Amino acid sequence: MNQNSIEKFKEELAEIYHLGAAVSVLHWDQDVNMPKKGMEMRAKSIANLSGILHDKFVSPSFSRLVRAAKKELDGGKLSDENACIVREIWREFSREKKLPLEFVKELSETTSVATSVWAEARKENDFGLFLPYLKKIVSLKRKEAELVGYKDSPYDALLDAYEPGMTAREIEMIFSELRDFLVPFLANIMKSKVRVRNILKGKFPIERQVEFNKAVAEKIGFDFDAGRLDISTHPFTTQFHPGDVRITTRYSDRDPFYSIGSTIHESGHALYEQGIPMENFGSPLGDAISLGIHESQSRMWENIVGRSENFWKYFFPRLKKAFPKNFDKAEMGDIYRYVNAVKPSLIRTEADEVTYNLHIIMRFEIEKELIEGSIAVEDLPKIWNSKVKEYFGIDVPNDALGVLQDVHWSGGLIGYFPTYALGNLYSAQFYEAAKRDVLNLEKEIRAGQFAHLLNWLRKNIHIHGKMFTARELIENASGEPLNAQYFMDYIEDKYSRIYGF
Amino acid sequence: MNQNSIEKFKEELAEIYHLGAAVSVLHWDQDVNMPKKGMEMRAKSIANLSGILHDKFVSPSFSRLVRAAKKELDGGKLSDENACIVREIWREFSREKKLPLEFVKELSETTSVATSVWAEARKENDFGLFLPYLKKIVSLKRKEAELVGYKDSPYDALLDAYEPGMTAREIEMIFSELRDFLVPFLANIMKSKVRVRNILKGKFPIERQVEFNKAVAEKIGFDFDAGRLDISTHPFTTQFHPGDVRITTRYSDRDPFYSIGSTIHESGHALYEQGIPMENFGSPLGDAISLGIHESQSRMWENIVGRSENFWKYFFPRLKKAFPKNFDKAEMGDIYRYVNAVKPSLIRTEADEVTYNLHIIMRFEIEKELIEGSIAVEDLPKIWNSKVKEYFGIDVPNDALGVLQDVHWSGGLIGYFPTYALGNLYSAQFYEAAKRDVLNLEKEIRAGQFAHLLNWLRKNIHIHGKMFTARELIENASGEPLNAQYFMDYIEDKYSRIYGF
Repeated sequence: MNQNSIEKFKEELAEIYHLGAAVSVLHWDQDVNMPKKGMEMRAKSIANLSGILHDKFVSPSFSRLVRAAKKELDGGKLSDENACIVREIWREFSREKKLPLEFVKELSETTSVATSVWAEARKENDFGLFLPYLKKIVSLKRKEAELVGYKDSPYDALLDAYEPGMTAREIEMIFSELRDFLVPFLANIMKSKVRVRNILKGKFPIERQVEFNKAVAEKIGFDFDAGRLDISTHPFTTQFHPGDVRITTRYSDRDPFYSIGSTIHESGHALYEQGIPMENFGSPLGDAISLGIHESQSRMWENIVGRSENFWKYFFPRLKKAFPKNFDKAEMGDIYRYVNAVKPSLIRTEADEVTYNLHIIMRFEIEKELIEGSIAVEDLPKIWNSKVKEYFGIDVPNDALGVLQDVHWSGGLIGYFPTYALGNLYSAQFYEAAKRDVLNLEKEIRAGQFAHLLNWLRKNIHIHGKMFTARELIENASGEPLNAQYFMDYIEDKYSRIYGF
Repeated sequence: MNQNSIEKFKEELAEIYHLGAAVSVLHWDQDVNMPKKGMEMRAKSIANLSGILHDKFVSPSFSRLVRAAKKELDGGKLSDENACIVREIWREFSREKKLPLEFVKELSETTSVATSVWAEARKENDFGLFLPYLKKIVSLKRKEAELVGYKDSPYDALLDAYEPGMTAREIEMIFSELRDFLVPFLANIMKSKVRVRNILKGKFPIERQVEFNKAVAEKIGFDFDAGRLDISTHPFTTQFHPGDVRITTRYSDRDPFYSIGSTIHESGHALYEQGIPMENFGSPLGDAISLGIHESQSRMWENIVGRSENFWKYFFPRLKKAFPKNFDKAEMGDIYRYVNAVKPSLIRTEADEVTYNLHIIMRFEIEKELIEGSIAVEDLPKIWNSKVKEYFGIDVPNDALGVLQDVHWSGGLIGYFPTYALGNLYSAQFYEAAKRDVLNLEKEIRAGQFAHLLNWLRKNIHIHGKMFTARELIENASGEPLNAQYFMDYIEDKYSRIYGF
């Protein structure tokens, strides 16, 4: 492959990325702007465009370019940047080539129907309705694992799609350590006499919340010249390229924290995307490493920064000023405890920092056994409920609040959940490293200064795109491989002080 | 061609329409939502997607399907609907095939640069700056006319792209009749002693204007479940399909009519698009007939309905209620005269109903002679200014307010202007026909009831898509060919009453 043909490869790849950006615009518009009669036709437009994108990716002409590039990579003839691009495209390409068109179609059709059935089943609290679809999905995902191939567990083949290089065995070790710390720690909190006061009074006008959320996002570094903050049912971040990264949140006029937490979380994702060099758009050099690393950015800003005492020392006076009638009696201690209240709960998405990972751990344990075939799909509700009892000490009143709560499995996203917890673990480790490197980091946060922290993240994480693997990145940034101890120390220190033990 | 291959043709055509819808979403988003750092990359995404669309349209496989379909059409073997589809696609296809790729590229690159040069020239009031580009464009458009072919005037070949079937000769006849009526009529108005009072006092809060505009659009029939109203610098309508038609307007906090006029105008366009049967999306059956017919819908709602006495008898009390402090002394007569004030002006886009067509007529006269080669590009400012003096009786102080005011020529849109005036003429003729068919139409408008008028437009215009030519449509709907007398009668009757002569 001569210089011309690697350039040709990158040119065609950039076109595929532009198509991807167009698909993302259609999705964003669907979730944020779409009038209801536009839905059906938009779904067709998206399917049409996604089909064109996929056809281009697996077309004979692009395949030839990819294979030629792979030969160059194997011959050690590429620059570091080009090597990264070819390595990552080859990963994706060869995974895709292993899955026959018929299989992809069956999976896509099954999950498409299953997602509506799941919504109905959750609404009707009827696991039996969902059961045959989930069975089908589990069996298809097992087949996917066989087609893709794996060394130890078929779960590895699925996990690899979301967190490249991570294995089930590794996660198992990390999660069991984490679980053995969290379960008794939560029990301790439950015994605490510290009570969290409800500090919210009256109505919080939405327009003022919108302003406040924008101010917070901007303050921590979100660039509104390269993005937007809008409203959608479920908060999300989408990026067309580093110059156009859009986040959403949702508002409750009874609770400003309902929107603020989401805004900071999505801003964390967005800061990652805005921090990727614009000139790297159009190849894996301009892509985030993994879901876990992505989540580490959102979680760090949302939790470690956004629920810290220093953060609220800066923002609480501003929040009070924005809503002068709603907070007249609340003090700093009240708000700090309020945003960090720990309570075992049934629903993952509403969980606090301490219990959140337990929700993930039980999902991982369940889906790994499902894929390995050591538990049966029909036993899920029973298994689910007994784990909730074991880890949280509470009873699950019905499947809608239990095994049916999350959409992921109906969409075929098995192997996805662990990335949420990995994000939490990465985030604590990154933050400790940043504290070592950035003098007076905590003091800066108390003064509403976030630029040095953001610069640290830019330099150590964002600008690299997929240049490194997650494993390399965390070592480069923090000096050691992923180590759950940082997260456990963070939780222990913070919450034993809040709950007085 | 068997049943299967016409179905295959329609299937591929629908995919092309879906790509077109995606391009439209990218454009809409660019004009309404785009953060500034997203611009450059979005332009590339749009170019990329438009390229894919064009490649599909002229691809060998689609070309084969089009040619086969054309044979069936010529053999008289197609249903009316399929015949319409093939006829219209063949028109577009054969026009495109006549233009060599090199020519298309040269025109596109020239107009792309010329548009920025024009903007600069207008800003600097420097026609000389724009002159070489306009010369190039005129020469390219002459070439386009030769490549496309024509019978009488090369202008016909250009006009046909916007108003299929219309000829320069026909427009010349209609416009000269119109000009000979309008010039003295305007002079009469100028002699009138009737004075229009400025009825606007104080500030009109934008949020309340947004609400009012939405209420007006909804009242006349705009379906917000199948569309949106947003803000952009230049108001426009875009449709992805009949279930998602989006309009924009812009606001001034000093003048609510600034937004209302645009909103009604764009709503008129949107009602056309929303009125096309959803199942016809994906072929010319689901496309509007021509720019002139499209403009007839916007102009009818904006002017004939939206500037009528009956319309304001209904809406003025509501406007006063929305802005109670701003209109305390204005009466019905004041507002009716205010929204219909006639004043010779330099700028087309700010012109009233009486003078608007004169702006178009002079542009048509100029660009026809340019294309026929009977005037030179360098003489344009002189010719422009003398026509303004002749038709409006005013002097042009500089080229920025004269020959440089409109973007069209810099974009290569020669032959486009006449469709604006045709829209006005069609609209008066349609409205007279609707008045004959809808009992008490004027009374209904006074009562804020627009459903019967909209139904008439739906039935006679909207639902047909491109099934008929503009010529057939106006005859079917009104019983005769396009006749400018309807418009002249409308203007004469309305404005002689307003200006008391």
